[in-house]
Amino acid sequence: MNFIEKSPLARKLSNFVALSASEFDALRNLHKRRRSFVAGRDLVQQGQSDQAAYILSEGWVCSYKIQPDGTRQIVDFQIPGDFLGLRSVLLRTSDHSFEPITDIQAVEVQAGDLLDTFATSPRLATAILWAASRDEAMVVEHLVNLGRRDADRRTAHFLLELGARLVLVGMGSQTGYDCPLTQYHLADALGLSAVHVNRVLRQLRENGLLMFRNGKVMFGDRDRLVEFAGFDPEYLDQNGPFLK
Amino acid sequence: MNFIEKSPLARKLSNFVALSASEFDALRNLHKRRRSFVAGRDLVQQGQSDQAAYILSEGWVCSYKIQPDGTRQIVDFQIPGDFLGLRSVLLRTSDHSFEPITDIQAVEVQAGDLLDTFATSPRLATAILWAASRDEAMVVEHLVNLGRRDADRRTAHFLLELGARLVLVGMGSQTGYDCPLTQYHLADALGLSAVHVNRVLRQLRENGLLMFRNGKVMFGDRDRLVEFAGFDPEYLDQNGPFLK
Repeated sequence: MNFIEKSPLARKLSNFVALSASEFDALRNLHKRRRSFVAGRDLVQQGQSDQAAYILSEGWVCSYKIQPDGTRQIVDFQIPGDFLGLRSVLLRTSDHSFEPITDIQAVEVQAGDLLDTFATSPRLATAILWAASRDEAMVVEHLVNLGRRDADRRTAHFLLELGARLVLVGMGSQTGYDCPLTQYHLADALGLSAVHVNRVLRQLRENGLLMFRNGKVMFGDRDRLVEFAGFDPEYLDQNGPFLK
Repeated sequence: MNFIEKSPLARKLSNFVALSASEFDALRNLHKRRRSFVAGRDLVQQGQSDQAAYILSEGWVCSYKIQPDGTRQIVDFQIPGDFLGLRSVLLRTSDHSFEPITDIQAVEVQAGDLLDTFATSPRLATAILWAASRDEAMVVEHLVNLGRRDADRRTAHFLLELGARLVLVGMGSQTGYDCPLTQYHLADALGLSAVHVNRVLRQLRENGLLMFRNGKVMFGDRDRLVEFAGFDPEYLDQNGPFLK
């Protein structure tokens, strides 16, 4: 047993496919270029070309787009085991930016390495594309969140989704999780103002549904919260049968 | 010259890579199972498993998610040359539904056919993944649209994006395009009510920016509209250099 078998990415992919020894080797080969980045300094900037992708191994990141008027929309947060910019390897320029929210550890993956892995380990390739598909399903759900849920349900749904994702990589439980996000991050992800987020969180707390305080999200009554938010985790595809 | 070279998909992919004769052959091989579908009847339903993907060759489709309370969020519209459900081939169940807005012609593509094409035509594979990445960049932009643009700019941005996409497949010009969408479609895509969309369209028309009437979108002053909406088409990646 070494670091790869215990890595968040292996934990995540193992939910989809039972990886063989040679597939773990192929995964290990992708982990050649380890990098550290400090909080607050973009890894990849909107409009940048020829960028690599990254596998996040420690810490939290957000992906975002800046509008011409300076407002920011956070597209998603990335947690350990997530790819950063996998899709942008194919676009000629990156369509959004990545900013570490905490200090992070990440592995740089170049397009050539990925293509080699895809050619030699088709099952691993399928598992990586599964993870990419799941990331996209989350962005679609965030669109539903902004378009069709009110501020309270939107916030509750988002924090439940983060919880389910963290459980998959061993960083959360049914009762809650550690969370380095500020109310400004939540505001930029949820299309709300920070003041509004603050009011929503107070409301959720007073209703005994959820408490977000001192870097911890704690579910008060998770079942009632799930029902309140209309949270159906099927789009996260975490509980299906293994790939044949 | 036969139908494949002139197909909307070939037109779109040719923007990214100059396809060779053998790559056109591989593309032709994907077009074995032609299907017709009538307007209003879902091709793929949210939660359905083991579905195929489709290449849309004629007509318009929308992809959407239904909320537990029955409200609908349209994720995107698909036009000729677009894939339907390419991503969902990888998820164990489809995370959203596809409904033809008009009667349509589509080609069914099974996962095995796709993987064969990927193995034999890596450049064509890259072009298809480019198209998929571009689709995702659009969903991200729709998220920005809902999160950070007011109703007027949101509507203008969306109709400019549709126009740019249609130009790429030879179905629109700088002055406008034919558009079968109703105000209900726009409302469900933009997170607005149909009444609100109606008011926004009247406002855009009175300001000389845009007219949407009798199935046609006509730009009044396109430059001013682009500036008003903050529309930067870079995320559509339509004007980059060819793949080497």
